[in-house]
Amino acid sequence: MSASNEINQAQQAWMDGVLTQVEQALSDWVAPTAPERLDEAMRYAVLDGGKRLRPLLVFAAAQAVGAQKDCPATLRAACAVELIHAYSLVHDDMPCMDNDVLRRGKPTVHVKFGQAQALLAGDALQALAFELLTPTEDVVDATTQAKLCRLLAMSAGCHGMAGGQAIDLANVGQHLNLDQLKHMHKLKTGALLQASVMMGAACVPQGQTVSEQAQLALQHYGEALGVAFQVVDDILDVTADTATLGKTAGKDAQDNKPTFVSLMGLEKSSLYANQLLEQALSALDQSGLAQTEALRSLAHMVVNRIM
Amino acid sequence: MSASNEINQAQQAWMDGVLTQVEQALSDWVAPTAPERLDEAMRYAVLDGGKRLRPLLVFAAAQAVGAQKDCPATLRAACAVELIHAYSLVHDDMPCMDNDVLRRGKPTVHVKFGQAQALLAGDALQALAFELLTPTEDVVDATTQAKLCRLLAMSAGCHGMAGGQAIDLANVGQHLNLDQLKHMHKLKTGALLQASVMMGAACVPQGQTVSEQAQLALQHYGEALGVAFQVVDDILDVTADTATLGKTAGKDAQDNKPTFVSLMGLEKSSLYANQLLEQALSALDQSGLAQTEALRSLAHMVVNRIM
Repeated sequence: MSASNEINQAQQAWMDGVLTQVEQALSDWVAPTAPERLDEAMRYAVLDGGKRLRPLLVFAAAQAVGAQKDCPATLRAACAVELIHAYSLVHDDMPCMDNDVLRRGKPTVHVKFGQAQALLAGDALQALAFELLTPTEDVVDATTQAKLCRLLAMSAGCHGMAGGQAIDLANVGQHLNLDQLKHMHKLKTGALLQASVMMGAACVPQGQTVSEQAQLALQHYGEALGVAFQVVDDILDVTADTATLGKTAGKDAQDNKPTFVSLMGLEKSSLYANQLLEQALSALDQSGLAQTEALRSLAHMVVNRIM
Repeated sequence: MSASNEINQAQQAWMDGVLTQVEQALSDWVAPTAPERLDEAMRYAVLDGGKRLRPLLVFAAAQAVGAQKDCPATLRAACAVELIHAYSLVHDDMPCMDNDVLRRGKPTVHVKFGQAQALLAGDALQALAFELLTPTEDVVDATTQAKLCRLLAMSAGCHGMAGGQAIDLANVGQHLNLDQLKHMHKLKTGALLQASVMMGAACVPQGQTVSEQAQLALQHYGEALGVAFQVVDDILDVTADTATLGKTAGKDAQDNKPTFVSLMGLEKSSLYANQLLEQALSALDQSGLAQTEALRSLAHMVVNRIM
């Protein structure tokens, strides 16, 4: 099963449209007037790179709940979640964390701009994410703004991404069992991916609601996708090369980090990724939502990606 | 003129009441269940220390616009702004920034918990600030939530605090003129102090509004107070000792940083701080707001503090 078999032309066109919109918005919004090279560091961290999986998930979930293609809340949510992702990479790459020098095929932000600027750029990107979510109320209604901020803050903080990173940090060189590893990744990577889906769902047109059944299905979809993403990441870390990945391959083994591959082996990891794909798709079947094609395509893409 | 002359018993009692409420809320809210010592690092960064000037400003401005003393939005705004302040200190103290080892009379977070944990704790505190501002809507209405998030995000980000820090970073050892120095501090320290005032004002009871005149007056008050705070900080850096300050005294001169004292001298800096106090008080006179006593007391406190 290859990605190209599962993503048809219409879906690819939809994706391309979303990506164009997101790249343009990020370029417009990411700090063109920030002082003293902070603008450069922030733009370097965000622009010209990245698969934009999180923005795509926001748009796909928004489509599933009937949001218009030009809904300003969706675009802002998509960019905000990407800024949180980008800042986490900047901080994660710093010498006191993973000490990585290559990201998206380029020198990491601290290598290019120095550690202090990298620290500040990350901090400023997190703040900017919440700034994007809170324009004046004639652009996005207050209820949606509040909901988007809530979902993003909870997924980024100590019970989400940052918490997962703390677990990661504490367990370098330690033995983790599979449940512990899953728990770590549910927070570290999964929380923000799941939040992307739920933020998209929060862009439901005013006056309409998302049924509890659909909410729950989207949560399950997001959760399965989050774990699948990490399993595939671990597989690629041992099977792909640095040039393809755009980041240093083999880094986890080198850093003695527990991974799905180190615990389950390569073959079982691959089977597990496909089981998770089935779970994600089956959750959508049970959602009662009409337009889930984009969410389906993205689930296939996550599991079948080669980088 | 001493602080005690200007702050009467009623004001002191009001302040004590606010501080008790804020300390309790911070202790309840700051991450008691975050994983792997992240909770400890976050609590260490926030609890048992700090003058809580920003929370006091939030409460004082909220009082000025008629918010009830037990308004949940006010308490959340007060704590959120303190979390942003606390995270900025954690990151600012790190070796790649100011490399400071002492804060509030204790070892800094990275000295105590390591740099990686300090980085994560700061990141998680920023996210938690926005989480506090976005409870469910039966606690705080969505319009207030959105407004509070907007004010906080803008003041913390690249056009506020983080931007000011970037200017600071770029100008170590450089000559700045007075206007440049003021601009830097308006962003670095002033933006969050002003935001504290405006966030307090955003806690106006539902159905009521703050007049444009009052909004403008509070902005001027916050701006003057922000600069005054920094001028006094620069004065104390050369006149107070490390034990009194709870942080390393004489650090700015040692780091060759431009300060108000290095540009204006000690005497003129002191006169300037008092001029700014007058400006802040005069703005309140023109606000048309009835209950400005707490804001007045805090302005006196900022200028006459000894630590």
